[in-house]
Amino acid sequence: MLPRGYPTQDCSIARTLEVIGERWTLLIVREAILGARRFEQFRNGLHIAPNVLTTRLERLTDDGVLERRRYQDRPERYEYTLTAKGMALAPVLFHLMKWGDRYAPSDKGAPMTTRHRDCGGQVDAELSCDRCLQRVEFDDVELVRRPEDQPN
Amino acid sequence: MLPRGYPTQDCSIARTLEVIGERWTLLIVREAILGARRFEQFRNGLHIAPNVLTTRLERLTDDGVLERRRYQDRPERYEYTLTAKGMALAPVLFHLMKWGDRYAPSDKGAPMTTRHRDCGGQVDAELSCDRCLQRVEFDDVELVRRPEDQPN
Repeated sequence: MLPRGYPTQDCSIARTLEVIGERWTLLIVREAILGARRFEQFRNGLHIAPNVLTTRLERLTDDGVLERRRYQDRPERYEYTLTAKGMALAPVLFHLMKWGDRYAPSDKGAPMTTRHRDCGGQVDAELSCDRCLQRVEFDDVELVRRPEDQPN
Repeated sequence: MLPRGYPTQDCSIARTLEVIGERWTLLIVREAILGARRFEQFRNGLHIAPNVLTTRLERLTDDGVLERRRYQDRPERYEYTLTAKGMALAPVLFHLMKWGDRYAPSDKGAPMTTRHRDCGGQVDAELSCDRCLQRVEFDDVELVRRPEDQPN
C-alpha cells in the first residue's frame, strides 16, 4: 500500500491520486458526469456495494469534489452534484477513456462516445470534431453512453 | 476491493483503470516520461520498496506499457522504456498534474512545469503556451521537474 501522505514526494500527480486515485472514485465521477445525482442512480450505474458507495460519496464530498444537497426530509435523502473542482476532472476521464478505447478495447466497440455538443459530431482523442472539423474544448464534449448500457 | 474484471461494466475508463489504475503504476509512468530507464532511477525517483517496484515493472511490461531491454549481461540488468501505448498515457498524466496544481496544491508551488518544447514557454491546463500563444500538442509538452527535486 502506498502511504497516504507521500512524505518524500512533492508532486501534483501524486497528490491528485490521493484525492481521486482509488478506482471507484473516478468511476463515481464518471457517473456524475453522465448525470447521476442520487444514491440509487450511482448504484445502478456502478453495481457497487451500498456501504462502499456511501463511504466514497462521503470522501468525495469531504474532498470538495461533490456537493451534497438534501432533496427530501422524511426520510432524509441527499443528492450529489459535481463541484467546479469535480468537473475539472473531466479532461482526465476523457483521456482515460480514449486510451482505453484504443489500448484496452471492448469487443463490442467503444461503450461511450464523445459528442461535440454544438454540432453532434464525434470528438477524437486529439479533441478534433469529425463533423465541423473544429478543435473542441472539454466543456463542449458530452459523454454519451451506448443506449443498451443506460442504467435502468 | 474492486474485482479485476468489472464483469458488469463495459467501460473504457474502467478498463484503463485495470491497467494503470493502481497508484504506483501511474507514478512509474511519470518517472519514465521524466527519463527514468533503470531500476535505480525509478527507485530514486519514487522512494518505492524494491519488491513493489519489481512487481509493478513486470506488470507494466506484461501489459505492454513498458518495454524491457537487457543492457548488461553479468550480472543481468534491464532497462525499461515506454512503448507507444505507454507514451499515450501522457495526456492523462498531464491533466492529473494540472488538476493537482490547482486543486491539491503544494505550499512550495508547482513541483513540475510543462514546457513547450519548441519555444520554452509554459503550457497551461488548456494547452496554450504563454510565450508563443499557440495551442500545443501533447507531443510537444515536456514535463520538467523542479531542479531541487531531481533524483540523486
